[in-house]
Amino acid sequence: MYRHTRELQFTAKPEKPDALFAAKFQELVGGQFGEMTVMMQYLFQGWNCRVPGKYKDMIMDIGTEEISHVEMLTVMQARLLEGAPGETTAKAVAANPALAAVLGGQNPQHAIVSGGGARPTDSLGNPWNAGYIVASGNLLTDFRSNVAAEAQSRLMTSRIANMTDDRGVKDMLAFNLARDTYHQQQWLLGIQMLIEDGFIETQVEQSNGEWENKDAAHVFYTGTDGSRAGEGLWATANSLVDGEPLRAEELRPLTDDQGVLPAPDPLQFVTYDGNQGPGKPGNAVGGVAQQAENVVTKVKDAITGDKH
Amino acid sequence: MYRHTRELQFTAKPEKPDALFAAKFQELVGGQFGEMTVMMQYLFQGWNCRVPGKYKDMIMDIGTEEISHVEMLTVMQARLLEGAPGETTAKAVAANPALAAVLGGQNPQHAIVSGGGARPTDSLGNPWNAGYIVASGNLLTDFRSNVAAEAQSRLMTSRIANMTDDRGVKDMLAFNLARDTYHQQQWLLGIQMLIEDGFIETQVEQSNGEWENKDAAHVFYTGTDGSRAGEGLWATANSLVDGEPLRAEELRPLTDDQGVLPAPDPLQFVTYDGNQGPGKPGNAVGGVAQQAENVVTKVKDAITGDKH
Amino acid sequence: MYRHTRELQFTAKPEKPDALFAAKFQELVGGQFGEMTVMMQYLFQGWNCRVPGKYKDMIMDIGTEEISHVEMLTVMQARLLEGAPGETTAKAVAANPALAAVLGGQNPQHAIVSGGGARPTDSLGNPWNAGYIVASGNLLTDFRSNVAAEAQSRLMTSRIANMTDDRGVKDMLAFNLARDTYHQQQWLLGIQMLIEDGFIETQVEQSNGEWENKDAAHVFYTGTDGSRAGEGLWATANSLVDGEPLRAEELRPLTDDQGVLPAPDPLQFVTYDGNQGPGKPGNAVGGVAQQAENVVTKVKDAITGDKH
Amino acid sequence: MYRHTRELQFTAKPEKPDALFAAKFQELVGGQFGEMTVMMQYLFQGWNCRVPGKYKDMIMDIGTEEISHVEMLTVMQARLLEGAPGETTAKAVAANPALAAVLGGQNPQHAIVSGGGARPTDSLGNPWNAGYIVASGNLLTDFRSNVAAEAQSRLMTSRIANMTDDRGVKDMLAFNLARDTYHQQQWLLGIQMLIEDGFIETQVEQSNGEWENKDAAHVFYTGTDGSRAGEGLWATANSLVDGEPLRAEELRPLTDDQGVLPAPDPLQFVTYDGNQGPGKPGNAVGGVAQQAENVVTKVKDAITGDKH
Amino acid sequence: MYRHTRELQFTAKPEKPDALFAAKFQELVGGQFGEMTVMMQYLFQGWNCRVPGKYKDMIMDIGTEEISHVEMLTVMQARLLEGAPGETTAKAVAANPALAAVLGGQNPQHAIVSGGGARPTDSLGNPWNAGYIVASGNLLTDFRSNVAAEAQSRLMTSRIANMTDDRGVKDMLAFNLARDTYHQQQWLLGIQMLIEDGFIETQVEQSNGEWENKDAAHVFYTGTDGSRAGEGLWATANSLVDGEPLRAEELRPLTDDQGVLPAPDPLQFVTYDGNQGPGKPGNAVGGVAQQAENVVTKVKDAITGDKH
Amino acid sequence: MYRHTRELQFTAKPEKPDALFAAKFQELVGGQFGEMTVMMQYLFQGWNCRVPGKYKDMIMDIGTEEISHVEMLTVMQARLLEGAPGETTAKAVAANPALAAVLGGQNPQHAIVSGGGARPTDSLGNPWNAGYIVASGNLLTDFRSNVAAEAQSRLMTSRIANMTDDRGVKDMLAFNLARDTYHQQQWLLGIQMLIEDGFIETQVEQSNGEWENKDAAHVFYTGTDGSRAGEGLWATANSLVDGEPLRAEELRPLTDDQGVLPAPDPLQFVTYDGNQGPGKPGNAVGGVAQQAENVVTKVKDAITGDKH
Repeated sequence: MYRHTRELQFTAKPEKPDALFAAKFQELVGGQFGEMTVMMQYLFQGWNCRVPGKYKDMIMDIGTEEISHVEMLTVMQARLLEGAPGETTAKAVAANPALAAVLGGQNPQHAIVSGGGARPTDSLGNPWNAGYIVASGNLLTDFRSNVAAEAQSRLMTSRIANMTDDRGVKDMLAFNLARDTYHQQQWLLGIQMLIEDGFIETQVEQSNGEWENKDAAHVFYTGTDGSRAGEGLWATANSLVDGEPLRAEELRPLTDDQGVLPAPDPLQFVTYDGNQGPGKPGNAVGGVAQQAENVVTKVKDAITGDKH
Repeated sequence: MYRHTRELQFTAKPEKPDALFAAKFQELVGGQFGEMTVMMQYLFQGWNCRVPGKYKDMIMDIGTEEISHVEMLTVMQARLLEGAPGETTAKAVAANPALAAVLGGQNPQHAIVSGGGARPTDSLGNPWNAGYIVASGNLLTDFRSNVAAEAQSRLMTSRIANMTDDRGVKDMLAFNLARDTYHQQQWLLGIQMLIEDGFIETQVEQSNGEWENKDAAHVFYTGTDGSRAGEGLWATANSLVDGEPLRAEELRPLTDDQGVLPAPDPLQFVTYDGNQGPGKPGNAVGGVAQQAENVVTKVKDAITGDKH
Repeated sequence: MYRHTRELQFTAKPEKPDALFAAKFQELVGGQFGEMTVMMQYLFQGWNCRVPGKYKDMIMDIGTEEISHVEMLTVMQARLLEGAPGETTAKAVAANPALAAVLGGQNPQHAIVSGGGARPTDSLGNPWNAGYIVASGNLLTDFRSNVAAEAQSRLMTSRIANMTDDRGVKDMLAFNLARDTYHQQQWLLGIQMLIEDGFIETQVEQSNGEWENKDAAHVFYTGTDGSRAGEGLWATANSLVDGEPLRAEELRPLTDDQGVLPAPDPLQFVTYDGNQGPGKPGNAVGGVAQQAENVVTKVKDAITGDKH
Repeated sequence: MYRHTRELQFTAKPEKPDALFAAKFQELVGGQFGEMTVMMQYLFQGWNCRVPGKYKDMIMDIGTEEISHVEMLTVMQARLLEGAPGETTAKAVAANPALAAVLGGQNPQHAIVSGGGARPTDSLGNPWNAGYIVASGNLLTDFRSNVAAEAQSRLMTSRIANMTDDRGVKDMLAFNLARDTYHQQQWLLGIQMLIEDGFIETQVEQSNGEWENKDAAHVFYTGTDGSRAGEGLWATANSLVDGEPLRAEELRPLTDDQGVLPAPDPLQFVTYDGNQGPGKPGNAVGGVAQQAENVVTKVKDAITGDKH
Repeated sequence: MYRHTRELQFTAKPEKPDALFAAKFQELVGGQFGEMTVMMQYLFQGWNCRVPGKYKDMIMDIGTEEISHVEMLTVMQARLLEGAPGETTAKAVAANPALAAVLGGQNPQHAIVSGGGARPTDSLGNPWNAGYIVASGNLLTDFRSNVAAEAQSRLMTSRIANMTDDRGVKDMLAFNLARDTYHQQQWLLGIQMLIEDGFIETQVEQSNGEWENKDAAHVFYTGTDGSRAGEGLWATANSLVDGEPLRAEELRPLTDDQGVLPAPDPLQFVTYDGNQGPGKPGNAVGGVAQQAENVVTKVKDAITGDKH
Repeated sequence: MYRHTRELQFTAKPEKPDALFAAKFQELVGGQFGEMTVMMQYLFQGWNCRVPGKYKDMIMDIGTEEISHVEMLTVMQARLLEGAPGETTAKAVAANPALAAVLGGQNPQHAIVSGGGARPTDSLGNPWNAGYIVASGNLLTDFRSNVAAEAQSRLMTSRIANMTDDRGVKDMLAFNLARDTYHQQQWLLGIQMLIEDGFIETQVEQSNGEWENKDAAHVFYTGTDGSRAGEGLWATANSLVDGEPLRAEELRPLTDDQGVLPAPDPLQFVTYDGNQGPGKPGNAVGGVAQQAENVVTKVKDAITGDKH
């Protein structure tokens, strides 16, 4: 359960409003790597975590902090929009002609939709969507996604910070940059902790690893003519999983399978020249029949009590 | 520029069709972490890479390989759909009643839209979209996103592999799992190489790090009552950036800023009780005027040749 | 700023798992009118509220409660998914053939993506997106959206509740239904309070009402042959705004404007027969010139100090 | 069935073109609360309405009127775009330099995609999507959504109207504002009529109300420290459903359920410390078995004619 | 302006309900090539058409007919859903166990969201969106899109028609198939008419054709090893534009441009090895300066009256 | 399988950077009819093609060429963005005031997200999505979609080409325009080839044509008062399918079906006045029972070996 305190986590006061900058600032609120993304990603990972104690608490803690970050950013956003041009263009330009420059770059939905408040969108108005986040239940893969999100988020915050001289904005972003620095480490150390606690053996996701194609796990394939990629550590170091040497090979087909497809169902009107023989309606014959047969047999067995 | 060879990179032949499994298999084609995602992510990163030689070649090589992976998966998908039930339900059930079970779980667009071929969507039919990918120009952050994508992709491949006993499908997935194992390492070693080559100093993104809030870069904030998160390495180890100790603190406001917003523009009809004084139309007054004034002055200067 | 407590707001324990029901239950988590929608809608409205005190606190309070509701639902979701069929189909069916029915209707991403946890999507897998919510800064319009969201949400909760006999699920939904009952009233009483506090005069949004087309504000237009809609209160009562009688009229054009469009820019290759004379490239002529002229004049004035 | 007349419902002639304003005007065509939204919402509600006569006719009538509104807006849009800058930037600026200001703010798709016509998108180019609308079959909840849509739509129309001095645009918007004033009342009176006609008892959606958690239907939970929300009518009035007093209480957990999740399926590779005992593959055991057993038994009964 | 008649354009009565088929039928309502697509595409093309008379009337007429088609389909959809399983699963299965098969394949939103009515989505629940349609103002290109939409729509209707034996459904679909047959011809004959009326010279879009790369307009490039594509008419016929012979050539780079990118802005932290010299902050130098200079000069000229 | 060569297919060098133009240029990369669309559409059609030899090779060849086109465009995009304004606004304007005009119109994500590289989006930032493409397995319908895509793509390329005077950009676009000219013909000749090869009889999709409603396949319905559409070839020529004359008729209902819906399930709380008698819960009665009965009978028959 959650509770709220009126004070923000950190001060969010710009020196002065700036509608142009506010349009760009939206990227930090509702962009692909904005704070809504880490907030929702950590909340879902936390609720879905099956290791109570330090792991679940840690994810819950950061999820809770990120709600507070979105709050800070929305307050900053609304303050940046104070007095933003939202009225009759002609009048505005008459009062101060250079304002025309601002008129082009501001976000019209800040005036039309949110009345001078933050929008749950990125800097080009794309609504935030849950296709940005993941919560897989597997802490290694999720921590990997989290490091990535924090690194990208920090880079974008950094780029945006360079677009303003406003000390108030920069002070808050100096805090956010630091949190992203810290959080990157948090997730990297989290992976190290998973190893120390015996949840994983290496930092590489290797579920079902016992039957993967061992050879293909050690090769870099060069698909570009004259590629120099074989010079990199990824082709000269040893495997982080089993210590065997990695190597580069030229990308080439490992099969003579040319991807020829089976005969189609004639009732679906797929263009076909008969090269795989006549197709049959997909109602109870062909491969499906085999699949269905298994089911039928089993239903019958269950009823008659017969066991093969 | 790209070229094509008819042979697939790896054999994509299931032992037998399976329409139910094919519906789930779509997640690997066009899901959030399917092969379309890594293909498009690496292609855009490669085209956008500003370090010719081993780095650009490496990204281009893997981008090229991933096109071939999508190809393999689409062929597998179409073969899994051979004879899939697409015709009159009643007839189909009459011929083989247990087929009814399959009818519920198959993907109707496999019959209606693609005529038994793969769809550029995930297992629930969401069309692939470019909000899944990133190409930032910064190799550290992009390699982080790439490790994450490969780890998630490998996990989902692994889960799907456990949903079938088909040897043909498992053989191909054994290859794909291995590639994901290798590719995770490739990106991790790529980050190590960036350090060795002097592009970055640590594995943590720290642009504009010189002015970030140093203290906030070392603290884990606990926002859950009784949180045990302080026991983790993320609160007990030393910083991966500067070696200073990390620590845990209770999450609390670092400010008395309660997020009170400025007076709104009265012409936008925002509900307001006057607590910040009267609002003014956002046409040329308030903070924007200041911003505009700068522009006007500068235009004038440029024309009159005046320099302050 | 936000804080977290480990205890849920209300118990979320199903009597037994039910993967089929879990697929439908997603609608309450990430659907158009699921809890993520009200959570994000109220959070943005609260952060954007310009009336500190009982109004802002009220919105903040409910926003905070709704985070707790999403938490409850995700826990319920994960518990409903315990033991959900995620492995080899053939094996599963062999062990218990009737399971085949479940296999069709379950949500494959519950197994593939979230590892048995809740997904931030609706019952058909559409990712939640911010196009579902609104925060306009105007409390009347937002409270209207909130009543609507609670009413729809309650209806969908009610329909889903009728799809299960599980007492644990029903107990939690009995709580959720009650909250939706209460919250509908909360927003309706909120509108009454806005009137009592003098923020609005009537319950009808009427900004710029002084210059709207008065007559058109009192007419119901019947566009269906033989429509009986004129019998309703909407055509027989008095206006809720000014007390004047409402009435029904047949829908008919109030103009002879046939929507003929102006001559297009020839460089845009729009098909055109010349009926409005020759089109001109849209670079500096036509209507834009007039618009631009105003700007130019004003820039010049600002520099020369000339005032018309 | 529908028919068309060439005359528009109302005149849609701007005094002069204005490409900058046209970009913002898109919000009224294809925005979240634009006319496409109410058009499609009412059409689907009308087609889905199960009360022939005044209710179905009323919804059908307004749906039909809204098609006409989208038509008016698209004509206005195309006229606003006459002569919009779509050609070589350099040439355009040479002919009239102040045009540069317009170049930044115009919608590029107006030139590139629609050739100077309206686009089915909002003011930032987001394509209209059906996630904006609802048609639930329940007239109370749908009328609630409709009041909300009209109120939001009116507010946005009002804000946009304040962005122009063009008399032609303002005349049409004065008509649209009036329709939105009228339509708000139409839906509010519609709810009153539903009560008078006995379809509902109160204006609050209360399906399955007989078993909802009565106490929770009367409480406002304060989740913000020092919240003053208890001062509002929502905590001091009587229930609109049963007349019992409403009250405020501090938000607190009503359970000791800490949301601990069940053991995961080991074949899904969810990180887990064993705190709930060993997990089992989700193929036919655990909770699903119980569910499946019911089905099997019933199938058997149906065939053997046995009735428990 | 539009008007409505209660009678449908064509009877929409299934012999009996079928919830499984109804789920698939949604593809015809709100799918990529469903009736909502052609309805909205034709309406926008009609409103945007600049050739009054037979062309504009024709597009308006078909747009109006398509609204009526969506109406028919929604009525059919609701009738197919009569008695669809929406209540307690266990109860339903108890009464009629084979119903279990239906439970997996039905669309849960038909019960939860629309109360047994049509949804504005495709067969997998994706909400209809305006990214499916186009209205370019150019009748040749739009008629091409329209033929394509009708052909795809007809194919999908045809595939769906083969999934049922219901005479009522088939009767209506026989009408729809015929309309799609007719409409394909309508648009093809429309293109022929555009040529006869002198709006275009050939059936190939060739705006700015006078300066396109003539040679590249006649070549098929083979990018697959051993491609046999050179045997097709596309490589052996004469050009439909100028009658010159077409030919096949092997795909090869026509340049030595290796796509090396310019030095990045150092303040954006793009990884870069200096191969193009030092990058400079993108604030007023580099290429943008040149661009800006032109604008400044022109503003000055406009004000001083100076002409170069 | 695919391979890569460093050289581009065609030179992609602008004379000078142009951030404003770059924003518009995105439409050609990731817009509805940009190169990503044709690339992905042809790749999926090729992988899904069931006619090996000249058809499959042809589609594979063009799919491969289109990957190379996206590559060219992304390189051009990055070069256009050289030195684009991405830093402190105030500083930038100080150095060169006219730059203010550029600041409004540039794409902020070019600076914030991609670091001066191309984005997989359109000119307004909408991420590319797979709802833009189709691969139906039916070559006639897909070739129709392909002609349309090439025609629209060519028109948009042409419009964008007219927005710049840059010779480098125009040279590349002259190549692209030519390819679009050629590709339109390629698909039209492909349809002719399908007829010559006997895959289809006419250029009109007519699957299941033997039972379509013959009369409705020959009529143009006029739904606009006073429509002149009957003057067009679409109402005066002979059918392209059977040579019978086409004709125009006034749009009118062909039925007395008023779309009255069946009684709803009372447990879904749909508003209903009882006009179709009492509704029944949709659990096992009504139409579904009939459907279920068929299934049950068939299951029983399969098990007992009984044949009706």
